[in-house]
Amino acid sequence: MKNLWIKMFAAIMLLAGNVNAQQTGKTKTTALNFIFEKGTPGPAQNFTGRAWNVGLVANDTVYNTVVGNVYFEPGARSNWHIHPAGQILMITDGKGFHQIKGQAKKMLKKGDIVECPPNVAHWHGASAETGMLQLYILPKTEKGIVTWLQKVTDEEYAKN
Amino acid sequence: MKNLWIKMFAAIMLLAGNVNAQQTGKTKTTALNFIFEKGTPGPAQNFTGRAWNVGLVANDTVYNTVVGNVYFEPGARSNWHIHPAGQILMITDGKGFHQIKGQAKKMLKKGDIVECPPNVAHWHGASAETGMLQLYILPKTEKGIVTWLQKVTDEEYAKN
Repeated sequence: MKNLWIKMFAAIMLLAGNVNAQQTGKTKTTALNFIFEKGTPGPAQNFTGRAWNVGLVANDTVYNTVVGNVYFEPGARSNWHIHPAGQILMITDGKGFHQIKGQAKKMLKKGDIVECPPNVAHWHGASAETGMLQLYILPKTEKGIVTWLQKVTDEEYAKN
Repeated sequence: MKNLWIKMFAAIMLLAGNVNAQQTGKTKTTALNFIFEKGTPGPAQNFTGRAWNVGLVANDTVYNTVVGNVYFEPGARSNWHIHPAGQILMITDGKGFHQIKGQAKKMLKKGDIVECPPNVAHWHGASAETGMLQLYILPKTEKGIVTWLQKVTDEEYAKN
């Protein structure tokens, strides 16, 4: 009977492992908790790798606020870019990075909040091993939405 | 061997059930996915039941946007209230309700987005059986944050 319970426990652990993570070559794909639709991949000229975007609140003159959700696949990141009125990020699952030009790269995880001030260049994206799910808020859209800049190089992405 | 697998499957289902839900009398408590801290209960004069609030982005003149997370326990709801610049809700887990004065009560679930326009009375809260986790955005805070009104009666809460 004791042996049976040990086997059952081992099988449960095995099953749990299969549900939560899949080992694909060197990249570990962790099942993230998608709250919103995955959306569609952002344009290749503004992203490295695939970043799936879904709009949740469209721009209007009532709220002057744009809200959306992005899923960065492992290794994927935005170009450097500027928001004229800044941006607020809420990390809902996974792991990633945020960097403001001239500052150190910061690690992000589920539950983290990022405030990026107006008119500073920044980028955000997933870690190399684990994807990242983030909600974004663009306030004061009467000032503009985004100006896209150059790609984040592999060196910039890898630098600590 | 076949019998062993059946027993293992049954045990796994039993375990999964214990992890995901607990049966407590007549109220089913489902384990919700908390992304942010639970925070502290809102003041009793503004809520029926317990609504736990944590501030995520404080008001300032850079973003003029307040962001926070509320966990409504089963049956808990806000009073009727007004936001001078409106409110955006993002339901991240669980089930609940939203009602704008003079309109029908709407059911809410994970992934739903609510836009409540400026200067209309509304309330939001959990379903009777399942709690609700929601992120809230208050834009254009230069216009004000909130005006609290009367309690949502049991009759209003129960009405379809």
